Amino acid sequence: MDRAAAERLDAEDPLGPLRGRFTLPDRVIYLDGNSLGPAQPAVAEAVGTALHRDWSEGLIRSWNATVEGPGWVGLPRRVAGAIAPLVGADADEVAVTDSTSVDLYAVLVALARLRPERRTILLQEGDFPTDRYVAGSVADLLGLEVRTAPRDRLGEAIDDDLAVLVLTEVDYRTGSRHDAPDLTRTVHSAGGLVLWDLSHSAGALDVDLHRWDADAAVGCTYKFLNGGPGAPAYLYVARRLHARIRPTVAGWFGHATPFSFADEYVPAPDASRFLAGTPPVLSMVALEAALRIQADVPADARSAKVASLTELFIDLVDRHCDGFGLEVVTPRSPAARGAQVSLRHAEAGRVMRALVDRGVIGDHRPPDILRFGFSPLFVRHTDVWDAVHVLVEVLSSGAWRDDRYDRAAEVP
Amino acid sequence: MDRAAAERLDAEDPLGPLRGRFTLPDRVIYLDGNSLGPAQPAVAEAVGTALHRDWSEGLIRSWNATVEGPGWVGLPRRVAGAIAPLVGADADEVAVTDSTSVDLYAVLVALARLRPERRTILLQEGDFPTDRYVAGSVADLLGLEVRTAPRDRLGEAIDDDLAVLVLTEVDYRTGSRHDAPDLTRTVHSAGGLVLWDLSHSAGALDVDLHRWDADAAVGCTYKFLNGGPGAPAYLYVARRLHARIRPTVAGWFGHATPFSFADEYVPAPDASRFLAGTPPVLSMVALEAALRIQADVPADARSAKVASLTELFIDLVDRHCDGFGLEVVTPRSPAARGAQVSLRHAEAGRVMRALVDRGVIGDHRPPDILRFGFSPLFVRHTDVWDAVHVLVEVLSSGAWRDDRYDRAAEVP
Repeated sequence: MDRAAAERLDAEDPLGPLRGRFTLPDRVIYLDGNSLGPAQPAVAEAVGTALHRDWSEGLIRSWNATVEGPGWVGLPRRVAGAIAPLVGADADEVAVTDSTSVDLYAVLVALARLRPERRTILLQEGDFPTDRYVAGSVADLLGLEVRTAPRDRLGEAIDDDLAVLVLTEVDYRTGSRHDAPDLTRTVHSAGGLVLWDLSHSAGALDVDLHRWDADAAVGCTYKFLNGGPGAPAYLYVARRLHARIRPTVAGWFGHATPFSFADEYVPAPDASRFLAGTPPVLSMVALEAALRIQADVPADARSAKVASLTELFIDLVDRHCDGFGLEVVTPRSPAARGAQVSLRHAEAGRVMRALVDRGVIGDHRPPDILRFGFSPLFVRHTDVWDAVHVLVEVLSSGAWRDDRYDRAAEVP
Repeated sequence: MDRAAAERLDAEDPLGPLRGRFTLPDRVIYLDGNSLGPAQPAVAEAVGTALHRDWSEGLIRSWNATVEGPGWVGLPRRVAGAIAPLVGADADEVAVTDSTSVDLYAVLVALARLRPERRTILLQEGDFPTDRYVAGSVADLLGLEVRTAPRDRLGEAIDDDLAVLVLTEVDYRTGSRHDAPDLTRTVHSAGGLVLWDLSHSAGALDVDLHRWDADAAVGCTYKFLNGGPGAPAYLYVARRLHARIRPTVAGWFGHATPFSFADEYVPAPDASRFLAGTPPVLSMVALEAALRIQADVPADARSAKVASLTELFIDLVDRHCDGFGLEVVTPRSPAARGAQVSLRHAEAGRVMRALVDRGVIGDHRPPDILRFGFSPLFVRHTDVWDAVHVLVEVLSSGAWRDDRYDRAAEVP
């Protein structure tokens, strides 16, 4: 494998032309789209219009109709319509609102209340901290118990006391991917419900909530969906639950007729009942514009590209990094991993800071994980090739031992 | 009173020069800053920098440090520091996060859990719908009862079963203002807690939560604080409660050390424990920039200006609108009202649409309320004079009866 081979893969890549629609800085190889996706000029333009025309000139009228388009009031539902096909859902099963943490809380409370006779919320050991913290606060509130099980023993922990299994499909540290249909089936057999966190899945992998028979899901839009820093999150509630599930925060945007200012709360008939307060319009406009590119992605192209990029990365690390104290912790089977590859190194923080200094941006998770994300819409095979060679240089030269790389990084 | 008198009042207005820092469309008199405050060029510039430099170039690194300033990660706390003096609080008692609805839910749940032996949440009849809906969902969740009382009989409804009184200081329909210190004292005497909704207060009136001895508050930033459509909300928790109050949604941004990715949830020591997920950066950057102007407002200047504008409006309506079927529903004593004046008219929707058509932007609330907001930072006495004369023209000519004004408006 030489660089020319990577160039040939890029030349054949059906997603290759999409890279030009992102703003990427010069001399940077951006392998952190799994933490914060990059900007697109079309997004900056949309937010500029929202600022300079719709807010500045249209003022309050823009809720009903913006200067050149539909009103802000429809933003949550329009964005839900754009996300639905990316997760294998129908638009009325998706609500775009709040943050992933708040959505997880709201949906978890609502699901647990559908299984009032059961006392257990099950999580995977070491799943994303906010998921564990939120589950803890829900259990504390409802008098439930949080149990955890190791990744490979979740099945054994599913019993007839399980109310809800909360699980990140792709592990934020290792990049391991669960067999979602299989786990969902197991939970359903035991009479429980499953809440999937798709934060590291949607936009990078094929997610098919209908095929999984999922009950509910939440996800983040600022990673592989490139919605912008802190962009609003989304949630999914299967249609079969719509008639019975109670929205946790009964806010006016989730009312069947918000602008009637009615005395009685009547929830919207679908997942929109989980909309709560007024949406953050500037962030929502950015997200809406950021999602337009998804309509130009051919079916199955994402997962094929991700498999190709991650396979190339692992292969090059295997070939060139022997003896540097690295361990590939991400599964070697493409079906068992997401769009990231994690490497273990005793001084992961220092190594990553040395890489960033050289323009290769990934991130690290304490204590010893280097994370590299492979967003299918803008990462090239040549980026993978170049990044591994910078990694080899950093490790073989010992450059990462330099004093300036000895500090704690704080990157969400 | 003639227009020259209004001009003289404007010439003497210490807040007069601030109007030039807002973007206001030509031929518009904007009396809807109580619904959506206008933009400022400085806000558009700040968001532009966040888009074009911090996100586009800095990418993930901007969480730690933006191109020309501190990192996004500190945004919620920085904005809390800017809001605190506007509500008479210290910065560590304020958290800027989520929407008003979600904040109200989170704080109400947390307060109710501090009074577990009490079963009542008390609201005012006809208070803002989302406050009532949210209180209903909290009561449903915790097995409490929501009771309501008419505005002038709240005191009688406060008893030893009261857990929390939830009250909007300034009524969104009538503009009536409660005596907050007095009501707070009454509730405390009965052993209960008070949660104030400051959405129609902060930025327009003098709010002094310390002097009120308030327990908690929430508020909106897109009205009189001009933070932009759907800008993040804020909440207040009195320092005396910090040690015992449990954050409702235990998310990672409310952790004492979010980026340790620790197994155990340890809440931040102050009101920041109510931060939950990743903040919507673009909306938060807009809010931070929008609040800078507040540092240039002399103490007491807001409330004096608001009293002067609203008094002039009521006086002119009294003089010139007799016989047009209007009723002033806002209290005539300045201390008893907020920064809005509401007029009742049987065809309020039609009348407001006719006004908007003529460049006078207020709003209406079904079935029969015309609302006019008097933001102290940009509304002039001459605007008041001109607006009333357009109102007189619309009413005296019967222009509002035109068919084109016969439709339902949907404006938050």
